[in-house]
Amino acid sequence: MSLVVVGTVAFDAIETPFGKTDKILGGAGTYIGLAAGKLNVDAKIVSVIGGDFPNEYLQLLNNYGVETSGIQIIKEGKTFFWAGRYHNDMNSRDTLATELNVLADFDPVLPESYKSAKFLMLGNLTPQVQKRVIEQFPERPKLIVMDTMNYWMNSAWDDLIEVIGMVDVLTINDEEARQLSGEYSLVRAARKILTMGPKYLVIKKGEHGALLFHNESVFFAPALPLEEVFDPTGAGDTFAGGFIGYLAKTGDISFENMKRAIICGSAMASFTVEKFGTEGLQAMQNGDLNDRIRQFSELVQFDIDLVEE
Amino acid sequence: MSLVVVGTVAFDAIETPFGKTDKILGGAGTYIGLAAGKLNVDAKIVSVIGGDFPNEYLQLLNNYGVETSGIQIIKEGKTFFWAGRYHNDMNSRDTLATELNVLADFDPVLPESYKSAKFLMLGNLTPQVQKRVIEQFPERPKLIVMDTMNYWMNSAWDDLIEVIGMVDVLTINDEEARQLSGEYSLVRAARKILTMGPKYLVIKKGEHGALLFHNESVFFAPALPLEEVFDPTGAGDTFAGGFIGYLAKTGDISFENMKRAIICGSAMASFTVEKFGTEGLQAMQNGDLNDRIRQFSELVQFDIDLVEE
Repeated sequence: MSLVVVGTVAFDAIETPFGKTDKILGGAGTYIGLAAGKLNVDAKIVSVIGGDFPNEYLQLLNNYGVETSGIQIIKEGKTFFWAGRYHNDMNSRDTLATELNVLADFDPVLPESYKSAKFLMLGNLTPQVQKRVIEQFPERPKLIVMDTMNYWMNSAWDDLIEVIGMVDVLTINDEEARQLSGEYSLVRAARKILTMGPKYLVIKKGEHGALLFHNESVFFAPALPLEEVFDPTGAGDTFAGGFIGYLAKTGDISFENMKRAIICGSAMASFTVEKFGTEGLQAMQNGDLNDRIRQFSELVQFDIDLVEE
Repeated sequence: MSLVVVGTVAFDAIETPFGKTDKILGGAGTYIGLAAGKLNVDAKIVSVIGGDFPNEYLQLLNNYGVETSGIQIIKEGKTFFWAGRYHNDMNSRDTLATELNVLADFDPVLPESYKSAKFLMLGNLTPQVQKRVIEQFPERPKLIVMDTMNYWMNSAWDDLIEVIGMVDVLTINDEEARQLSGEYSLVRAARKILTMGPKYLVIKKGEHGALLFHNESVFFAPALPLEEVFDPTGAGDTFAGGFIGYLAKTGDISFENMKRAIICGSAMASFTVEKFGTEGLQAMQNGDLNDRIRQFSELVQFDIDLVEE
């Protein structure tokens, strides 16, 4: 089933202990779109770029079957740019530059061909933009997944809460879950957030994996222990793209299938962190994803008889 | 099969955001012994206490079938005492007092009845004491598990490395694995540590679970997401006790069984953190452990068809 992705299509400049890049292809919409494209899902991006954005990057997305007609091009404008430097532990980073550019006045417009999509992924953006996209669907998509971040909790609380009330699945990290709920225990945080609208909550814990909450059920997927994490940029967005991509591909939004989607997203994210930017995703070959999915099974699978007490 | 446990039997005074205790029963040997006792394993403790240690605490251990004749009582001495205060996030703590007392001159002596044990758990203590215990076995136990901490890496490196070279399983936390190996990636750290003697490495990540490494295999067990963590004191030792207790109970030291032992240890630790000190372990009823083990299965179990790429 087709998938609409709203998110930034942008330039990133990244420094890690292993090296640094010039301006390279980045943005949440890019990672989500590429991940879904890798799953052969009919993905369509809504975004905005400036006249400085190379056509070859759009071509790259198209090559993975990702539709880009919903990406507005502001010829006289400049593309959103983010620069960051990761610390040695790769878990924290400093933002060196954030140039909103054309993103500052982004008013998303859904092309007609997008409006029948059954799956909608709202990448991290201002809640108002996320809401504007939902409103343009003549019929509510079958599943709306929303990513957001602490920045909007601090700067646009009311708008954020309104949009959270409109979605099916919310994905945030552990600190954000605590901030949003006011609860330190993630179990309690999840219970509270599940009363705010979403029926499913995904708590992303980076190298420590991800939790999926639904009613009283919980599922946990670890991150694969990797030889080396080279560049974490885009890992969360790749995860989101693999997650909703798997759901759109299978058309099944049951809790059991969401577990599989979490594993698929985690496996795809493991490729992203192994190289700079989108290189890891691009380098994936046929069979690679299934190899990683098998590794996940082996990593957590156990068979225990109950203990005689 | 019988199990010898070397570790502190001590007093703890604990402050958490939920309350504080006077001097209560604590110590690595206590938690390990109680956890093994809960599994009906024939556990025997080697330790040292002062004349101030209440007989009822020894009785408590005996009531769980734990042998205490190897606990030296220095009548004129005082028992080891630790006091700490946990921060709001429960992941970090300040040590308020460490009074070694009788532990300062501890020279472990294995009673004859201990010497035929097939399983040996070396709780966190000076490497010299750990070594002295190993040397007293006329025949090397079938499995030696060693816990240690960063303190000995900083203060007794050579002794520590020597003892690590004598054991089968090493349990340390993620920061300690990095310090011991000089590698940030836990996969690389594990590979290096597995050349130092142990055939198995358990990396404890607290609320983020535990990893088991052996040759090129990895197993991961999450921590159960709990409603509330009340007091983390003793969680790591309970985990160790549940781990080696399960192995001693089953007599099987294969990698597959070590996975089960990790789950058993994680399940037992989940009881410890729910109450102050040893109260959580003591409150466990028949059936509780198996309920938690079932929760672990549900938490991580998924069934995924390979993805058509």
